[in-house]
Amino acid sequence: MNRQARQLFPESDATLSARLQRVRATSEAICAPLTAEDHVIQSMPDVSPPKWHLAHVSWFFEAFLLRPYLPNYRTPEPLYDHLFNSYYQTHGTPFPRAERGLLSRPTVAEVLAYRAHVDRCLGELLAAPPAAHAEEIARRIELGMHHEQQHQELLLMDIKHILAQNPLRPAYRSDLPAQPCRPAAEATWHAYPSGLYEIGHSGAGFAFDCERPRHRVFLDAFRLASRPVINGEYLAFILDGGYARSELWLADGWTTVGQCDWTAPLYWRHDEDGWHELTLGGPRPLDLHAPVCHLSFFEADAYASWAGARLPSEAEWEVAAQDAPLSGNFYDSGFLQPIAADVTAEREGPLQLFGDVWEWTASAYRPYPGFRALPGSLGEYNGKFMSGQMVLRGGCCATPAEHIRSTYRNFFYPHMRWPFTGLRLAREA
Amino acid sequence: MNRQARQLFPESDATLSARLQRVRATSEAICAPLTAEDHVIQSMPDVSPPKWHLAHVSWFFEAFLLRPYLPNYRTPEPLYDHLFNSYYQTHGTPFPRAERGLLSRPTVAEVLAYRAHVDRCLGELLAAPPAAHAEEIARRIELGMHHEQQHQELLLMDIKHILAQNPLRPAYRSDLPAQPCRPAAEATWHAYPSGLYEIGHSGAGFAFDCERPRHRVFLDAFRLASRPVINGEYLAFILDGGYARSELWLADGWTTVGQCDWTAPLYWRHDEDGWHELTLGGPRPLDLHAPVCHLSFFEADAYASWAGARLPSEAEWEVAAQDAPLSGNFYDSGFLQPIAADVTAEREGPLQLFGDVWEWTASAYRPYPGFRALPGSLGEYNGKFMSGQMVLRGGCCATPAEHIRSTYRNFFYPHMRWPFTGLRLAREA
Amino acid sequence: MNRQARQLFPESDATLSARLQRVRATSEAICAPLTAEDHVIQSMPDVSPPKWHLAHVSWFFEAFLLRPYLPNYRTPEPLYDHLFNSYYQTHGTPFPRAERGLLSRPTVAEVLAYRAHVDRCLGELLAAPPAAHAEEIARRIELGMHHEQQHQELLLMDIKHILAQNPLRPAYRSDLPAQPCRPAAEATWHAYPSGLYEIGHSGAGFAFDCERPRHRVFLDAFRLASRPVINGEYLAFILDGGYARSELWLADGWTTVGQCDWTAPLYWRHDEDGWHELTLGGPRPLDLHAPVCHLSFFEADAYASWAGARLPSEAEWEVAAQDAPLSGNFYDSGFLQPIAADVTAEREGPLQLFGDVWEWTASAYRPYPGFRALPGSLGEYNGKFMSGQMVLRGGCCATPAEHIRSTYRNFFYPHMRWPFTGLRLAREA
Amino acid sequence: MNRQARQLFPESDATLSARLQRVRATSEAICAPLTAEDHVIQSMPDVSPPKWHLAHVSWFFEAFLLRPYLPNYRTPEPLYDHLFNSYYQTHGTPFPRAERGLLSRPTVAEVLAYRAHVDRCLGELLAAPPAAHAEEIARRIELGMHHEQQHQELLLMDIKHILAQNPLRPAYRSDLPAQPCRPAAEATWHAYPSGLYEIGHSGAGFAFDCERPRHRVFLDAFRLASRPVINGEYLAFILDGGYARSELWLADGWTTVGQCDWTAPLYWRHDEDGWHELTLGGPRPLDLHAPVCHLSFFEADAYASWAGARLPSEAEWEVAAQDAPLSGNFYDSGFLQPIAADVTAEREGPLQLFGDVWEWTASAYRPYPGFRALPGSLGEYNGKFMSGQMVLRGGCCATPAEHIRSTYRNFFYPHMRWPFTGLRLAREA
Repeated sequence: MNRQARQLFPESDATLSARLQRVRATSEAICAPLTAEDHVIQSMPDVSPPKWHLAHVSWFFEAFLLRPYLPNYRTPEPLYDHLFNSYYQTHGTPFPRAERGLLSRPTVAEVLAYRAHVDRCLGELLAAPPAAHAEEIARRIELGMHHEQQHQELLLMDIKHILAQNPLRPAYRSDLPAQPCRPAAEATWHAYPSGLYEIGHSGAGFAFDCERPRHRVFLDAFRLASRPVINGEYLAFILDGGYARSELWLADGWTTVGQCDWTAPLYWRHDEDGWHELTLGGPRPLDLHAPVCHLSFFEADAYASWAGARLPSEAEWEVAAQDAPLSGNFYDSGFLQPIAADVTAEREGPLQLFGDVWEWTASAYRPYPGFRALPGSLGEYNGKFMSGQMVLRGGCCATPAEHIRSTYRNFFYPHMRWPFTGLRLAREA
Repeated sequence: MNRQARQLFPESDATLSARLQRVRATSEAICAPLTAEDHVIQSMPDVSPPKWHLAHVSWFFEAFLLRPYLPNYRTPEPLYDHLFNSYYQTHGTPFPRAERGLLSRPTVAEVLAYRAHVDRCLGELLAAPPAAHAEEIARRIELGMHHEQQHQELLLMDIKHILAQNPLRPAYRSDLPAQPCRPAAEATWHAYPSGLYEIGHSGAGFAFDCERPRHRVFLDAFRLASRPVINGEYLAFILDGGYARSELWLADGWTTVGQCDWTAPLYWRHDEDGWHELTLGGPRPLDLHAPVCHLSFFEADAYASWAGARLPSEAEWEVAAQDAPLSGNFYDSGFLQPIAADVTAEREGPLQLFGDVWEWTASAYRPYPGFRALPGSLGEYNGKFMSGQMVLRGGCCATPAEHIRSTYRNFFYPHMRWPFTGLRLAREA
Repeated sequence: MNRQARQLFPESDATLSARLQRVRATSEAICAPLTAEDHVIQSMPDVSPPKWHLAHVSWFFEAFLLRPYLPNYRTPEPLYDHLFNSYYQTHGTPFPRAERGLLSRPTVAEVLAYRAHVDRCLGELLAAPPAAHAEEIARRIELGMHHEQQHQELLLMDIKHILAQNPLRPAYRSDLPAQPCRPAAEATWHAYPSGLYEIGHSGAGFAFDCERPRHRVFLDAFRLASRPVINGEYLAFILDGGYARSELWLADGWTTVGQCDWTAPLYWRHDEDGWHELTLGGPRPLDLHAPVCHLSFFEADAYASWAGARLPSEAEWEVAAQDAPLSGNFYDSGFLQPIAADVTAEREGPLQLFGDVWEWTASAYRPYPGFRALPGSLGEYNGKFMSGQMVLRGGCCATPAEHIRSTYRNFFYPHMRWPFTGLRLAREA
Repeated sequence: MNRQARQLFPESDATLSARLQRVRATSEAICAPLTAEDHVIQSMPDVSPPKWHLAHVSWFFEAFLLRPYLPNYRTPEPLYDHLFNSYYQTHGTPFPRAERGLLSRPTVAEVLAYRAHVDRCLGELLAAPPAAHAEEIARRIELGMHHEQQHQELLLMDIKHILAQNPLRPAYRSDLPAQPCRPAAEATWHAYPSGLYEIGHSGAGFAFDCERPRHRVFLDAFRLASRPVINGEYLAFILDGGYARSELWLADGWTTVGQCDWTAPLYWRHDEDGWHELTLGGPRPLDLHAPVCHLSFFEADAYASWAGARLPSEAEWEVAAQDAPLSGNFYDSGFLQPIAADVTAEREGPLQLFGDVWEWTASAYRPYPGFRALPGSLGEYNGKFMSGQMVLRGGCCATPAEHIRSTYRNFFYPHMRWPFTGLRLAREA
């Protein structure tokens, strides 16, 4: 790398390369416990086969770094540009999403070879980035790593969903640590005064375009619960007829409950031994003290109505989280399941804002005032999804720790519940 | 009416009765040009047969006024409480919405008899309201009138859609006034400074629960176009390949364009004579100076992207509209079609904020901070629809003039385009 | 009419005209008890609005007689050729079948005017048929009358289905005669020896192309039940768990039972007073002695399996019916509902082969050996429907008496049950 | 095996065991060229994943031989009885057919272990069959072998369909022999006189229940083409607008053409080099002399109409095939693709009745007179599918040679075209 490029890189090339290798290795580590057969399944259109994820995140580097910037780059297979393009309409024609599970080829071994090929070429590129593009290359490498981390969480969500279809009830891993068996603290309310606040990302670190620009919002005084809603509380909602009382539900939610026959969160099962929950470690008795997980927005909203509260707006959530330490039960802690917080560690402010479960907010996923999408095809990354979806905040037990921020905006459609999604209550002051 | 009740009424009972009669008569006047057969059709699940509308708005008075407050009230047909309940789950079981077009009975004549019966009983109730409930009765009469006015607009939307299915191209009325043939003014920008504003309804007049409470919002500086986008401008978007350029569209919009084969607004037809528009007065050549109408949110958003602008938020719109005169091309003007504004009348501020076309905003329809739904079944009126829909503002050429306010929040799903919907551009300052 | 044409006509022109008028009048008489609103409804894609039937049968005469043979014929509305073409692909483009219920225009009055216009023009044509075409004209008039009679039965089936959707339970006619309350005879078996038989139509009278040619079939010895299965017998099947025992059902039938939640014939309802049946005269207590009606082929087949028998083939049925008198409970008897046979009238051979209920046979609707469709567009009348459907024989209580023959082949898909369909058992000898 | 059992076996136990082993080995040989990933895909509901086939045919032996007859039999996994039950409703609850592609477990290795377990246990059973059941055991072994052979053909059909979804166009095997490049003979007509014939199976050899009993049929004189329709002839139909001429099609066929956008047989592709056909050996230029393949019944019927002919009935086909040698281009020949017949070998009678392509007949799949299904759950094997499907005759290039007979009745729904299906013309004499 020449001197000029070196200066443009926000970190040394060695560090960037090392981080890239670490991120890339993590994806493969996540898939290591899977059989070849597990890699092929698409259990619903929203889910992608694990080997598709492994290939797609590599395609992202190929399409946006190797093709434009590595001289004489040659792809091992031109059709991969079609097969592994997720949704970039301005970059060719994506293979139909709902048909990803029809592709037995490339095999897992061939996908891993493709990954190795891309890694090798990225190494070449990083070793000698063209000076004119060094800054953009670094930016895109950064973006590509965050993109791959998003897919690491998607991999874990999708693997859970795939294995859950199977009556044999296979566990993803049988060596996961047991959940700590400890009581959750009573929920209390933290109060925030009305006033002008700032939310959104600014400054040097990485953030997606949708987190920008930082801007002012006026908030009425509000209160936020000290922790997420837990399984025991949600069970009380169920036992109180929550799924049968239309007055608690949004109209679209009530329709969905009827059409899908929902009577409990996804992955909950009731049998003669009581309530169980399917986890990545296999079926387990329901831990009443752990945050409730795998709820749709509709269920989160209905629960809040039942509890005489509401969901926080994303601005309220971010204001509360701005000063909270960026720690929690993430992918890195190894549980891969929400757990009750350790309440012995005294701390100011709400607990578990980060990690455990994504928290549904009351806010529709829409652009911030002054939002500008990335230029070119990368502009399709976030902006075009800004209709019909709701914002979630805080990351979960499947999110890589270094992937999350207080300004991070995740988003899903309100009926979706295969992500690790839960809720925290808010109220007027 | 005894003295106490009289005081509770915000207006004299005579005035209220007179207004009620006028509102009720308008619904029947709207349906007068229809044949009995026209009253029966449900052209898509979103549309209701005209006679269903006529009965449902009467049921609303029956369910929420006559049954609870008129002593010894007897319905002419107990099953009407099932057939004409639209969506009040806490008030019995509504007849399935998509099957309203399967009901030939009650006939139009029977529905009109039902209306007369309800009117008679409302007369009795207003003549001697029980003192303990007089205030609530007045409130509900007011709500019932606004409800019926909403359905008057729905009737016109639905009649237009029903007749449009028919290759015989029947006109709703052949005696509608010709559209004034005048050029639209060039669009200019009105600038608004950043700052804390207030939006939402407060005070004495009628407003729906969703318009409350009045509350503060912080807005960055913005600019708003001086008039809605017109057909000629939208045609330029079409001719520039607007419907074929994925980069202009939200992802869900792009999917919808493909699934529905959209290439122009609803009711536009291109034949050898050029572009035509189906109107309530039959097919007419497209008036390039009239506001573009019958757009989905997706189309409005794509147009704004193409134009290098964006949609205003509902707060921006309301701030701009707070001081504008509440006049425009409404139902009462008799055109039943958007028309170019009369620009000879000098005026400050944006034109045509009210009337002509509902303007899609950038805001999802969500509760205001501190929102409280009405108590009881009437709480289902608005609150439960606060997911998945977008806010529209300003009323249209089918809205009764006295029904609209600057705080009025209309809402539709982003793919819908059978209402009289258009757009106005906004930009950062 | 000149001398030559007169000779070509199989009956005097006066007689033909009189028959035509009688047939045409019957269609209008069937619709007379309906409101204008009833005429508009399409309760499922298989059903057509009554006014569509009234118009379509007139269009048939217009398309196949007036347009080709009446000099200077002018249609009142060219688009009717599109709207009322049912399925003649070689004669323009039929309006989509499933959208017939979206057409409020032409109104009932306009349809009746269209009928009068067609009748007037047919009168002109019959008064002076072009000599060169007189024979073909007579043939087509005959076909048109039989076509209209088919639609008379369809009208009654469709009216029954339309009114049955309505929770108000309107009766088509409240003046229908009461069903005779008499016991059905015990079912016995009639035996037929093996041998070569002939089936199919030959000779002079009218028959559809699909009934031709008469041809030889070899039949093994078989037995045929002396009467159709009756409600009481079918109720025993239900009470014996018939709808829950997969082993009795064809695979496609079992799937249909599950998807449609069938637990009884269409129009049966069980309430606190026991079993009721919706009839054209309104709801009535189930008559255990009347032939069971409104069964799908799947139900008929499952019942036969349960009873240790089978359905007869169409050849077996026709062999048994060849010598039976062409009398029974048809439209003309006025019951419009199957009734128990009068067993006091002594007679050889099986009873009720004609009238009451169409009897599902074991035979798929396929061409006879040597089948030739009519030439031209009329060839689409029958031949193209010869896949996926099953043959039914004998006519029903809604069939005009003069429309039926022992060679008559009716056909429906095996899941359909809105026609007046029942069954008769057969066995090996 | 004791003496008594030995006598009951129609062949020596050694021979039966040897045949069983050969049949079982063939299934595994068919799957040998597949990757693990290929085994998992279900490309449409009609297709099953290859590993599902491998497991299901083993389950058949487990369910109908090992469980009832092998003392103390233990299954390796009780849930396999659910997962690999195809459609035997009276034997537990089959796993939903359309979800077979959601099962990554058991893996291919586990399925092969299951197969080895079943083979081992079958060996035990055959070594010492309980005397009381020896005959039934031999019958069921025979049935199980024929069942597995059916699935061998299904495997090849399904593998072809699975790989065809993949834009990478993987070949099943790249070592398949080239198709012989030789011209087809001109088609001529073979004439058969009218008369009483016998069809159906009788006597000692194996046949499915649906082929029985042998019975008399009367046939009018007919002619049968000397060979199947070939690609070149079918191409002429296409070029003559065959797919755009409604008058050639059955109504359901015409609807299907429109809904599925059919313009050629399945697996045909037109590119700049002309017509190609996807084969199990990869894409190949269309051989104009080979029998046309992968047609639906609807296409076969439309072609016959276009050619001024018709399809033969199954009785006509069987009469013509009764004396033909049971040889042809089967699975065993190794082409796995229809090929032009070798016309140098002089022979009486129609060619290629066996092998190459299944020939659609004009006959619906219905029970023969006197048909009796097997007792118990095995009665679900054939009988319950006797509605809505059409009979095909003669086997194809993927059928094991020893699996076919002149009385063999294959059946598919009329829209299906992923089997190796073609046609032969017939006419009246």
